Amino acid sequence: MAQFETVFVTGGAGYIGSHTIVELLNANYEVIVIDNFVNSVDEPNGESAALRRVEKITGKTVTFYKCDLLDRTALFDIFEKHKIDCVIHFAAIKAVGESMEYPLLYYKNNLIGMLNLLEVMERHECYQLVFSSSCTIYGEPKQLPITEDHEIGGNITNVYGKTKYFIEEMLADISHSNKKWNIICLRYFNPVGAHPSGEIGEDPTKAFSNIMPYIAQVAIGHKPILTIFGGDYNTSDGTGVRDYIHVMDLATGHVAALRKLCREHQHLKAYNLGTGRGVTVLELVKTFEKVTGAAVPFRIMEKREGDITAMFANADLADQELEWKAKHTLEEMCIDFWRWQTKNPYGYRPNKSSKITNGHGH
Amino acid sequence: MAQFETVFVTGGAGYIGSHTIVELLNANYEVIVIDNFVNSVDEPNGESAALRRVEKITGKTVTFYKCDLLDRTALFDIFEKHKIDCVIHFAAIKAVGESMEYPLLYYKNNLIGMLNLLEVMERHECYQLVFSSSCTIYGEPKQLPITEDHEIGGNITNVYGKTKYFIEEMLADISHSNKKWNIICLRYFNPVGAHPSGEIGEDPTKAFSNIMPYIAQVAIGHKPILTIFGGDYNTSDGTGVRDYIHVMDLATGHVAALRKLCREHQHLKAYNLGTGRGVTVLELVKTFEKVTGAAVPFRIMEKREGDITAMFANADLADQELEWKAKHTLEEMCIDFWRWQTKNPYGYRPNKSSKITNGHGH
Repeated sequence: MAQFETVFVTGGAGYIGSHTIVELLNANYEVIVIDNFVNSVDEPNGESAALRRVEKITGKTVTFYKCDLLDRTALFDIFEKHKIDCVIHFAAIKAVGESMEYPLLYYKNNLIGMLNLLEVMERHECYQLVFSSSCTIYGEPKQLPITEDHEIGGNITNVYGKTKYFIEEMLADISHSNKKWNIICLRYFNPVGAHPSGEIGEDPTKAFSNIMPYIAQVAIGHKPILTIFGGDYNTSDGTGVRDYIHVMDLATGHVAALRKLCREHQHLKAYNLGTGRGVTVLELVKTFEKVTGAAVPFRIMEKREGDITAMFANADLADQELEWKAKHTLEEMCIDFWRWQTKNPYGYRPNKSSKITNGHGH
Repeated sequence: MAQFETVFVTGGAGYIGSHTIVELLNANYEVIVIDNFVNSVDEPNGESAALRRVEKITGKTVTFYKCDLLDRTALFDIFEKHKIDCVIHFAAIKAVGESMEYPLLYYKNNLIGMLNLLEVMERHECYQLVFSSSCTIYGEPKQLPITEDHEIGGNITNVYGKTKYFIEEMLADISHSNKKWNIICLRYFNPVGAHPSGEIGEDPTKAFSNIMPYIAQVAIGHKPILTIFGGDYNTSDGTGVRDYIHVMDLATGHVAALRKLCREHQHLKAYNLGTGRGVTVLELVKTFEKVTGAAVPFRIMEKREGDITAMFANADLADQELEWKAKHTLEEMCIDFWRWQTKNPYGYRPNKSSKITNGHGH
């Protein structure tokens, strides 16, 4: 039994959140979740479609509130109602392209949401936090694989990444000024895949910004062709190199981080969560085709401004200090995502025509 | 007559704000001011002591609202009530040392205040903004004098400076995404001095973070001795070098910036406001003693972590593009501040015992 029993999860109805909650429940944590359904699907009764599936998978229940982090009063009330030991903060808007179009929206949501959460945590003397950071804060890598001591904040080409960087800086300052804080930033590489049950997975409510849902939509025939940006990078096959990581590995990484917070007070520490293996976009597509038997026609377009040639993790620190390692293969990432896609061709919605009622309303 | 007639000034009861408003009124702008009295003095009737003096100096009136930028509804209402052409955003908390102790307070105030203002401006299609930035965003200078194209954000040693840097980045992204924005960031060097009337000046409501009020308080006998941090820098006399600029020069810099916004749509542009001359702390003290005839005993202590050896501006760009130059000498800075100090030994308060009722309440 963990010392920190009750975990508060923001954005828990989303892709990484829902998968992490499966592992939290498996590890016997009590889980309280908020989500505003901006990036996830709600049901007519106001519950989360993903979390209902999580409960089905685990046979356990979560406490859910529909709540936006910009609503400080609602957030405060939840902290009054529950004795919260620890927070995992997933909630954020995260579409890179969209963040360039609507920077004010991104800064507002991601920064104010974080500041409100920190304020409410401090008021309730809850100082244990796991923050969802991203490898985008490294900017263009100066060496590969990238270690946690690589410079951050230099040359970040998108607003989404800047919000993550600004927050890491804030957390550094806050934990420096008040030694009660005990914070772990997890710098995700490229999460893909789905829970092996096929019950939960990534269900983007917006135009594709992540590659695997796009590949799967082409494979299943909902989209005619996959567009790959950039075919003349200095890589083995000319396409960009990324460190794809199975979302269930990310999930166990969060449990490992909670355990670390529980056994050690480090103030602030950042860990890469990646496999350590660089994979080209074409390799991912080919692996997907091989293991699923589905064809994924693609075309190669001009690289986009700000896109990075190659990014992959050195994940040794998480291995040493969190006792965590990514275990799942690229094949498993593809198989598991495909299972989710074929079992749920329209994600959490029953059919193509069922409307997505949510949206961030800019 | 200016094309932009009505200027909304946030933090207008503060030191730089009040001096700028004198010049705005002299230039026939209509001025609407908000302040929350966190860094300025209010009178029993809820008005600003400094702004009453501004009206006395200029023979003109300003419209004042007590309003905190964190109160979006109140801010929105002011924009509904007035047709605002242009905004000068001074409001921020700015004590460097305090910002390290209370980072969450600083991030919250400065970032959320800015985001709320931008949102309300956008809703009212007001896209002209002059933002109070700071030379601290340059971090440790890589060359001197420093030009606007010097890297920003590298190695900023205090939270106050980071809030300014984060905001400049946000403004860059926002003006990039929506070409209607027309923003000038003014990077202040070290504002000192006071209006030559001696009616308005710097009246710190907190422990001294700026040097000239400290010097003047020692000279007038309210403090026994001036502490100078760092006597073994690699400078002419071992003390740090700064670019002190008369606050009335800063004030005219803001009018010049407004005129630039009016005649040219540049989206976003940053200008140094400095004299271009580096002066050591000891030179400032000696000049103050010489022109005032008052003694300023001092002692030299160890340098503080994060303090920078030397920082002074190349202000050519403001000269070329804003048609602005600092005109006042170091002697005038001292004389004018001393006039303010001797005419108002307790600042805007009538005597030593009159309480400062305001404060940010952390």
